[in-house]
Amino acid sequence: MTHAPPPETSSRFDFSELEARDRYKLLIGSVVPRPIAWVTTLSTSGVPNAAPYSFFNCLSADPAIVAIGVEYRSDKTFKDTAQNIRDTEQFTVNICDHSTLEQMNITAIAFPPETDELTEADLTLVPGEFTDVPRIAEAPVSFECRRYITLNIGLSRDIVLGQVLGMWARPGLVNERLHVDATQLDALGRMGGHAYCRSNATFDLPTPSPEQWAQMQTKIREDAQ
Amino acid sequence: MTHAPPPETSSRFDFSELEARDRYKLLIGSVVPRPIAWVTTLSTSGVPNAAPYSFFNCLSADPAIVAIGVEYRSDKTFKDTAQNIRDTEQFTVNICDHSTLEQMNITAIAFPPETDELTEADLTLVPGEFTDVPRIAEAPVSFECRRYITLNIGLSRDIVLGQVLGMWARPGLVNERLHVDATQLDALGRMGGHAYCRSNATFDLPTPSPEQWAQMQTKIREDAQ
Repeated sequence: MTHAPPPETSSRFDFSELEARDRYKLLIGSVVPRPIAWVTTLSTSGVPNAAPYSFFNCLSADPAIVAIGVEYRSDKTFKDTAQNIRDTEQFTVNICDHSTLEQMNITAIAFPPETDELTEADLTLVPGEFTDVPRIAEAPVSFECRRYITLNIGLSRDIVLGQVLGMWARPGLVNERLHVDATQLDALGRMGGHAYCRSNATFDLPTPSPEQWAQMQTKIREDAQ
Repeated sequence: MTHAPPPETSSRFDFSELEARDRYKLLIGSVVPRPIAWVTTLSTSGVPNAAPYSFFNCLSADPAIVAIGVEYRSDKTFKDTAQNIRDTEQFTVNICDHSTLEQMNITAIAFPPETDELTEADLTLVPGEFTDVPRIAEAPVSFECRRYITLNIGLSRDIVLGQVLGMWARPGLVNERLHVDATQLDALGRMGGHAYCRSNATFDLPTPSPEQWAQMQTKIREDAQ
């Protein structure tokens, strides 16, 4: 480790001096690739809703917790996802893969309330088993979740944490050791702007143990002699 | 939208019947690709630490909030990252790109406390400006953060939310409209097991407005006649 003065040429952004819209652009362009939660919910009157969110990840496995940042509308009212989670305390996270990209994007359109985006996207719903919320049959993986904690952190967004109750996967996607086949899954990553990346080309890099690392260093020194 | 019975062949996982280790495997294999927070912290005695976390994302831009899930050691004591954030309420999220992959992986080794993983990884630290925490000079982007909320959700992990105070970026990475160049950034995504993916090959898919969607549907119907 060496200590260095700040590179004079680095770009510097003081977040307290930026508009929210500019902070958003810097975050979505830099915190990448983001997994996509294609969230289905059910209204109290039984109307299903689907919408994609990339302010999303798992944050714990014990308990199994996922988090999503669900923005409000510009007039500060709740979008359907936030309202339905508030009303029912249930939601399902469907994973979006390359084969469902176009359908996911249709569910992101700001349709008026009377339009059913699930019909527009020609999606198939399957009843939930761990919750009342249906999942998307076309999605490779679905997690049925119960609301765990909602953090109201400001005027723009709720941070909703959910506990995973059950998971569904396409046949053959998960092997007997519970490893998920990344190439088959072909999940989409969200990038800045309107951009996406695929995740079906992967490479492995195991983390060495301290003993393996010491052996690797000894070998490097010996080879250098 | 159509309603369908559950596909008989789907794999079903009841999370209440699974060991934590198995829930972990299913989550890290399915919630992909995950961005990587290469977190630097400083102990109360001034010793810097670096470690990668992929239970990480931004969850809000207003305020600018990032979340990381920081696991405890198997004996339930805090790892350095969790202890340092608890003690100093500051941390810096460095983004890990393809060029820093090997160095990041060295900082993931479970070294004994007397080993300085930053020296082992031959990394350069630059003093913080918005916090006391140094950032990694080799990283393409760094976010200096102040602890916002810590959620103690169980015996395995703290969920730490931080507010971004300032950001640093490699020269030329962010343009005058605050768009981040994904190909230059070349951020790594974390997959299941020991796997990673790259995010430098992206494609764009804008979301249409409701009016654009209606026009597209009309054109499809006309073309079909």
